[in-house]
Amino acid sequence: MARHIYACPLRWSDMDAFGHVNNVNFLRYLEEARIDFTFTNAGEAGEKAFSEGSVVARHEIDYLRPLVYRPEPVVIETWLTKLGNASFTVAYEIKDEDTVYVRASTVVVPYDLASARPRRLTAGERAFLAPYLEVGEPVAA
Amino acid sequence: MARHIYACPLRWSDMDAFGHVNNVNFLRYLEEARIDFTFTNAGEAGEKAFSEGSVVARHEIDYLRPLVYRPEPVVIETWLTKLGNASFTVAYEIKDEDTVYVRASTVVVPYDLASARPRRLTAGERAFLAPYLEVGEPVAA
Amino acid sequence: MARHIYACPLRWSDMDAFGHVNNVNFLRYLEEARIDFTFTNAGEAGEKAFSEGSVVARHEIDYLRPLVYRPEPVVIETWLTKLGNASFTVAYEIKDEDTVYVRASTVVVPYDLASARPRRLTAGERAFLAPYLEVGEPVAA
Amino acid sequence: MARHIYACPLRWSDMDAFGHVNNVNFLRYLEEARIDFTFTNAGEAGEKAFSEGSVVARHEIDYLRPLVYRPEPVVIETWLTKLGNASFTVAYEIKDEDTVYVRASTVVVPYDLASARPRRLTAGERAFLAPYLEVGEPVAA
Repeated sequence: MARHIYACPLRWSDMDAFGHVNNVNFLRYLEEARIDFTFTNAGEAGEKAFSEGSVVARHEIDYLRPLVYRPEPVVIETWLTKLGNASFTVAYEIKDEDTVYVRASTVVVPYDLASARPRRLTAGERAFLAPYLEVGEPVAA
Repeated sequence: MARHIYACPLRWSDMDAFGHVNNVNFLRYLEEARIDFTFTNAGEAGEKAFSEGSVVARHEIDYLRPLVYRPEPVVIETWLTKLGNASFTVAYEIKDEDTVYVRASTVVVPYDLASARPRRLTAGERAFLAPYLEVGEPVAA
Repeated sequence: MARHIYACPLRWSDMDAFGHVNNVNFLRYLEEARIDFTFTNAGEAGEKAFSEGSVVARHEIDYLRPLVYRPEPVVIETWLTKLGNASFTVAYEIKDEDTVYVRASTVVVPYDLASARPRRLTAGERAFLAPYLEVGEPVAA
Repeated sequence: MARHIYACPLRWSDMDAFGHVNNVNFLRYLEEARIDFTFTNAGEAGEKAFSEGSVVARHEIDYLRPLVYRPEPVVIETWLTKLGNASFTVAYEIKDEDTVYVRASTVVVPYDLASARPRRLTAGERAFLAPYLEVGEPVAA
């Protein structure tokens, strides 16, 4: 069992006129964590197909605490709560050492851009993802 | 019973390298619909406090069909599925006449920026929101 | 001689933590005006190639007045100050009836994505652009 | 004489439908370099007023080579080409070890948000900025 850890840099412009990181930009942070996990890391492990097409089918996201820009990145922990034949569900926490800002989950569907259709996970992709699977209560209640 | 209708303009740059509107930018569209509803329209009705502070506590969003940039706006219908004392839940559909791209819901919390605390809805705010309340199954399943 | 007119919608999130439209987002507005001009309008006139590849070689932009979000769009006037063989220069003003917020200019280069190389303007593209050419002092000083 | 060096992380979504980092997002990278220089570093040196208000009066930017997303940051070198009483001009290069993607310059004006007016540089701010001043040809031709 493993968790993917991503140190996610903020941008000053992620804040909105209320002076906090805008709720939409947390979804951007989650995307960056997924890119690091399923494009960069999976690609380094020989599984490049996610980076050639994958779509989001669903997000759930709970905002627990506001976040203000600072130069230090936030930590995003990512793991799997479901590993299906044609989709998988990732859960995440965006946090500092002692504070959780966001809990969320995303259903990801591998996608063939050329045919514009969802596709099944390959055996190699499942082998890459399996160690991150944690069965239990979904993080976003 | 009423629904708020917003014609949401797309931007070409809302598309990502896969050539579709990026999943995160649909949350931006939902924000624009909420701004039009709870900042502009509520403000015209004399309720300006939402535009002086309100935060998102939770989103659920289901992506049903991909969307490609075009000059014509998409339609966003917004209504309420819950009207509490210190929060309300809006549901939305992003669609064209015969196609639904996204179904989603958001828990919104009125917020006092000066004290950095959530606050209760005022009687005037509840009166503004009440006609949009539809009780039933939540849109995002 | 003609000017392209684009009514550019703002988004609330275009403002930054200082409560004004962020300087970078004005470049986004200029992009939207160019998309409307060279993708949508040129495409309607039978010239689709800009929308299949064109790159920005240079921007100059002067910020004259701050802009705060409001539901009403700003007007962007666009015209040409140079029409070359393999590039053209557009100038713009972002404004309301009696206020200019931004003056800017952009060098655009038609680009062949497949070969990853700049290309020359076609006769049809030059015919589409020529009516918008105004020779004179560049707008961005 | 010194240059400010910033390792600027890219985001996958900085690419547009043409598969390159969108021209507007390079301005965002320049903003991040300025934030690091004039908010974070100047703040650490005791000069916090830039982060409480500063506006961009002008940008010039030349795009030399396209950039595709990768996990590694790009380097942004920043220095001053002018240090006035109420404004300063920074120049930048966005680059890898052997490739320059962008050359640009920005006129920055310290701004008092409360009074909504430009203000003069303080002696402390000038002392912070002076070591970065390089007189010569502006970078963006």
